[in-house]
Amino acid sequence: MIVIGNEILSGRTKDKNLGYIAERLTALGIQLREARFVADDMEAIADAVNAARAKYDYVFITGGIGPTHDDITADALAHAFGVGIDHNPEAVAILEAHYEPGMLNEARLRMARTPDGAVLVDNPVSRAPGFRVENVYVFAGIPAIMQAMFEGITHELTGSNPLHSRTVSAYLAEGVVAQRLGALQAQYPDVEIGSYPFYQINRFGISIVLRCTDKARLDQAAEAYKQIVRELGEEPIEGEIH
Amino acid sequence: MIVIGNEILSGRTKDKNLGYIAERLTALGIQLREARFVADDMEAIADAVNAARAKYDYVFITGGIGPTHDDITADALAHAFGVGIDHNPEAVAILEAHYEPGMLNEARLRMARTPDGAVLVDNPVSRAPGFRVENVYVFAGIPAIMQAMFEGITHELTGSNPLHSRTVSAYLAEGVVAQRLGALQAQYPDVEIGSYPFYQINRFGISIVLRCTDKARLDQAAEAYKQIVRELGEEPIEGEIH
Repeated sequence: MIVIGNEILSGRTKDKNLGYIAERLTALGIQLREARFVADDMEAIADAVNAARAKYDYVFITGGIGPTHDDITADALAHAFGVGIDHNPEAVAILEAHYEPGMLNEARLRMARTPDGAVLVDNPVSRAPGFRVENVYVFAGIPAIMQAMFEGITHELTGSNPLHSRTVSAYLAEGVVAQRLGALQAQYPDVEIGSYPFYQINRFGISIVLRCTDKARLDQAAEAYKQIVRELGEEPIEGEIH
Repeated sequence: MIVIGNEILSGRTKDKNLGYIAERLTALGIQLREARFVADDMEAIADAVNAARAKYDYVFITGGIGPTHDDITADALAHAFGVGIDHNPEAVAILEAHYEPGMLNEARLRMARTPDGAVLVDNPVSRAPGFRVENVYVFAGIPAIMQAMFEGITHELTGSNPLHSRTVSAYLAEGVVAQRLGALQAQYPDVEIGSYPFYQINRFGISIVLRCTDKARLDQAAEAYKQIVRELGEEPIEGEIH
């Protein structure tokens, strides 16, 4: 995933798109391997796009496709792919249908510019479309619009076996359980075991997240972990503690 | 900035550290240029570290320095720098002073391992320290601890002239003002002008953020923008509209 925008890197805007896409991809059986946050800088965007599209099955970009001068994502994509950029007739038609006569000015028409070879991504919220070039999807940065665009293309994505997941929590210090957890991981190399300490008022604990494509193996590992918790004198709790 | 952790990329945990560090760096007159989110993967972390430390003045890393098997940031740093890793006597002493006798087990001692040449970063919250190797700072992933660690090292950072900033909002569609905004940007190339549309119930508008090291130039550009808003029949509002 590539998140574009000076406003994120300056701290003015807090990104909400990474969390959304990460969660949805996991549910679709697709592993998000990396995310990059880059400035509104043509070369920085193009470099990030070219590194990612060669390495991963899919690349998702958010931000920088509005009508103002700082929206340069479409140009950066054309630059990255080494292709031209022009007003996309299909996108122009969508905008023409959307705006009242006389309201579709030059700036708004910028939102219809796509790199050559791009396929449009539907925007049911505010019409101005996103687009896809090969394996690179470009969505708006505004979360509500981004989410609608993403949900509109999920049928195009091919996931693998989704990971099953179980979470087991306990009021135990991470340092107390860490060693046995390492041994458990060695015993179940096919189960991804993550350890997430939490702090509450006066109490601290740890949530263990186990993930595996094989449900039976996952349950075995989860039960083995619960046994470890009991041997340490605590009661394992299924799920997270809030 | 480099954020480490499968739990972020799977969407399980929503990162809060990027927003914090971005905002604080901006206040300190340091521009955050890029952020990367990488998995708990030795090579992926080392690659991100080596790319960033060659390119930027400072690199800030969060996550992966706890006591469990999935905490591999210290090892990945040693790998990136091509140096050894061992228990840091100073860090061991901190942990020995913190834990009750018999409670400092092997897993907890893992938190005292640092790459050769590392300087410790104080952790006033839960003691186990972060560290710095050359221009790379390594902080804990838990926000409260990360923030305390970051605030403890800000005196070591050299910022440039901090950017002054003004925000002017108006109930105007971005597409209506975009063209004149582009002309304003061309007239004030030394002022960074960002455009952030917002939606409220039944109303939409745009916040313009102007940033410049020169306060007088910033004010000139802000006044020129307010004039544009008035010419479009709307009232400019200083600051953001919530």
